[in-house]
Amino acid sequence: MKNYRIGIFGLGTVATGVAKILKEQSHIYAEKFAVSFEIVQVVVHNLDKKRDPKTSGLTISDDPKTILDNPDIDIVIELVGGKTAAKTIIEKSLKAKKHVITANKDLIASQGRKLSRLASENHVGLFYEAAVAGGIPILRALSTSLASDDIEQINGIINGTSNFILSQMRQKQMSYHDALTLAQEKGFAEADPTNDVDGIDAAYKLQILADFAFGKQINQKDIQMGGIRTITQTDLQDVAELGYEIKLLANATIIANKLALSVEPTLVPKDHPLASVQNENNAVFVTGKYAGGLMFYGPGAGEFPTANSVVADLLSLVNSGDRPAVFNSHPDSEVSLAGPKDRIASRYIVLTVTNRPGAMHKLSAFFLMSNINFRNIRQYDPIGETTRVVIITYPASDAQLNPVKTTIKQARGVKIIHEFKLLIEPKGGQRD
Amino acid sequence: MKNYRIGIFGLGTVATGVAKILKEQSHIYAEKFAVSFEIVQVVVHNLDKKRDPKTSGLTISDDPKTILDNPDIDIVIELVGGKTAAKTIIEKSLKAKKHVITANKDLIASQGRKLSRLASENHVGLFYEAAVAGGIPILRALSTSLASDDIEQINGIINGTSNFILSQMRQKQMSYHDALTLAQEKGFAEADPTNDVDGIDAAYKLQILADFAFGKQINQKDIQMGGIRTITQTDLQDVAELGYEIKLLANATIIANKLALSVEPTLVPKDHPLASVQNENNAVFVTGKYAGGLMFYGPGAGEFPTANSVVADLLSLVNSGDRPAVFNSHPDSEVSLAGPKDRIASRYIVLTVTNRPGAMHKLSAFFLMSNINFRNIRQYDPIGETTRVVIITYPASDAQLNPVKTTIKQARGVKIIHEFKLLIEPKGGQRD
Ligand SMILES: NC(=O)c1ccc[n+]([C@@H]2O[C@H](COP(=O)([O-])OP(=O)(O)OC[C@H]3O[C@@H](n4cnc5c(N)ncnc54)[C@H](OP(=O)(O)O)[C@@H]3O)[C@@H](O)[C@H]2O)c1
Ligand SMILES: NC(=O)c1ccc[n+]([C@@H]2O[C@H](COP(=O)([O-])OP(=O)(O)OC[C@H]3O[C@@H](n4cnc5c(N)ncnc54)[C@H](OP(=O)(O)O)[C@@H]3O)[C@@H](O)[C@H]2O)c1
Repeated sequence: MKNYRIGIFGLGTVATGVAKILKEQSHIYAEKFAVSFEIVQVVVHNLDKKRDPKTSGLTISDDPKTILDNPDIDIVIELVGGKTAAKTIIEKSLKAKKHVITANKDLIASQGRKLSRLASENHVGLFYEAAVAGGIPILRALSTSLASDDIEQINGIINGTSNFILSQMRQKQMSYHDALTLAQEKGFAEADPTNDVDGIDAAYKLQILADFAFGKQINQKDIQMGGIRTITQTDLQDVAELGYEIKLLANATIIANKLALSVEPTLVPKDHPLASVQNENNAVFVTGKYAGGLMFYGPGAGEFPTANSVVADLLSLVNSGDRPAVFNSHPDSEVSLAGPKDRIASRYIVLTVTNRPGAMHKLSAFFLMSNINFRNIRQYDPIGETTRVVIITYPASDAQLNPVKTTIKQARGVKIIHEFKLLIEPKGGQRD
Repeated sequence: MKNYRIGIFGLGTVATGVAKILKEQSHIYAEKFAVSFEIVQVVVHNLDKKRDPKTSGLTISDDPKTILDNPDIDIVIELVGGKTAAKTIIEKSLKAKKHVITANKDLIASQGRKLSRLASENHVGLFYEAAVAGGIPILRALSTSLASDDIEQINGIINGTSNFILSQMRQKQMSYHDALTLAQEKGFAEADPTNDVDGIDAAYKLQILADFAFGKQINQKDIQMGGIRTITQTDLQDVAELGYEIKLLANATIIANKLALSVEPTLVPKDHPLASVQNENNAVFVTGKYAGGLMFYGPGAGEFPTANSVVADLLSLVNSGDRPAVFNSHPDSEVSLAGPKDRIASRYIVLTVTNRPGAMHKLSAFFLMSNINFRNIRQYDPIGETTRVVIITYPASDAQLNPVKTTIKQARGVKIIHEFKLLIEPKGGQRD
């Protein structure tokens, strides 16, 4: 039986779950892997805070040195969050040759590759399964079972809050505002929901996914971003009639050997598995050249699902034997990022047009200018002076569309309300 | 760079895919893992058969000794199928201290634990990700990411043929017979579809899944079996109106600390992720005490998806370092099998009743006898002499239901057409 000594930073939602699982499952881990774990020290921010009674018995301090300077601690679990204190904790731990497990998407999103390098220089492991999609074991799957494959595309519902809001709007014909309020009441959304509804949280996770699938540390500024604040009941019903659902998707797609990244409302065909992911659940759809389309579905957050991913990392770390414990198996790659010419997709475009003879003629001229072809057009009965026009185009690039948008912005009597992409469905798992 | 020498038995669908992937991806594996693979020898049944031109250059023989007696071969890939020749091949390979990778569900279903023991006695690995759900990395997920959890339930759509048939019946209002013919035309079903439509193939895979999730080698006779041959359009429409889809599910559920196993048509609520799995796709829904409900979805068969799983095993094997390469991390367990009293579920029961005053009164007396409560009853307009009655019960055990079935069998004017269970939805991922 090998005993591992653990120091945990933080004793909030996830850390409390980790402490409980380690307590409840210890006999199982002993039997399965002949290992035991001992939480030697916990470091928190506020010593006076009341803790879950199930964590009583833990040694708690507010001094980071009690972990960082303790040579008896083999493994540090960072569950503080944020980019500042956590970064110091992780760097110091790795340099002290302690393995690190974290759930910190904010930090790993931009520093994952750098910190992993620091880990391997110090011959220790850095694992962070819980940072993406909480309880879903997607990172380890990409790093092991899909290491054999050539990933072509990733599309994920990886922000539970925004998916909850869109699902409730759809199921209960609610407004965005009411669904947001409900999400806040249920504890799924914070008072300031910006990170969730504008795609920032999903972009962090996409940065990590892209690193695992394509071997590239992504900057958030290279991700095309769009949020869900302006989506209305009318939009959801329009697209449903056309056979789609609107989902806030994180997308990483190889188009013509370039990597296109976005987090944006995306039209998903009704019969696609991502379309039926409801409420706060997450799902990541991965298309591999060989494996074809795989989807990993489950809870994207929550005390126990997230803590379970942390503990799975712990077991994986101690089971990795003499091999350097590398979490992300994808080597650095030189894939370049897609430009406006490469970003090709069908579009869903909603406009309001002043109701006047020749309005549609004028509108269609704008698109003709860039050779963009319509697959579907709906013009609705005018409300007052204006009429709503909904267009689905054939595949067109941003390079084609951008001048159209600029022209429309300058034109009178016409305004673009939305411009969302349709999900690209690659072949994958080709049979020849 | 470490070079591994491989011998492959078989050069059919999957083996051809493996040879192609190893050729196309070799530079990637060299870069990622500093390994190279060399297919030293292939053994087939019929030397005269024409092979895929992309496999030209391989050394092919019909003599098993060319692999088994070749001390230069480190790894044997068995892609012959069946229980006889394959068993000899695997046993001899392991005893010759060669690692083995196979996709052979028929054999592993009953011999998995025994063969794994033989492997570990000989300090080699035995991997078989492709044996369950083709391209979906479910076994490795259970063995690694979910090793930390306590699995409560597994429900899988793991026979693509029967799911294709049920999906087509549902989408196109086809009869079972027409959908089967279509499946045969598309190459999804064999001339004799017994293994697929009666649940035998799914049962093999369930045996393997149960071993990974619960640590028990299951006998096929301990699995309650039911097939899809007798399902009609009327059934699909009945259950749709009640809010369900009928799926051929493989189920392994812990009820009151006992393990209940079945492969049978099961009613899945429409908003459950398994309900929307269409056509030949597979999906395995796993409920863990901590992780909650996770679903793994993808292609359950096909040249490249299946071959990709084989190659993933290969990489996992060569990356396992000094640790004994154990594929199934669950130790032997003493969990006992559920008996009729433990098998508790709501039921969907379809009967025909001779249309006579008091018929429903008599029918309800049968169920009252066993204290079985109805949640939903529909009696349809009679066709000729008989009327169709559809009942959904509250949870009841087989022990309660069996005497009712026996009594009904002996009674006149009433006949049970179907008795399917409703999907049990466990809590899992509990938050407290
Ligand atoms: N919650 C989820 O479902 C979920 C899902 C996926 C990933 N994550 C990630 O997991 C991490 C932890 O999340 P959480 O929900 O558990 O957070 P939380 O409930 O807010 O807990 C944070 C903990 O960190 C402690 N802390 C804050 N600053 C500290 C410092 N400088 N030094 C030591 N301790 C400090 C706090 O101490 P006090 O208790 O004394 O205030 C608190 O115990 C975050 O990175 C989050 O993004 C969470
Ligand atoms: N196909 C799938 O999508 C799929 C999915 C999951 C799992 N699997 C499993 O993968 C395995 C292979 O399936 P498959 O579809 O590739 O089968 P297949 O196309 O029928 O190929 C079988 C191969 O085995 C060879 N063979 C038969 N008996 C042999 C013997 N005694 N010695 C040496 N070679 C022998 C055959 O040789 P000849 O070519 O000379 O006849 C043939 O090349 C099976 O266990 C199957 O259950 C298949």
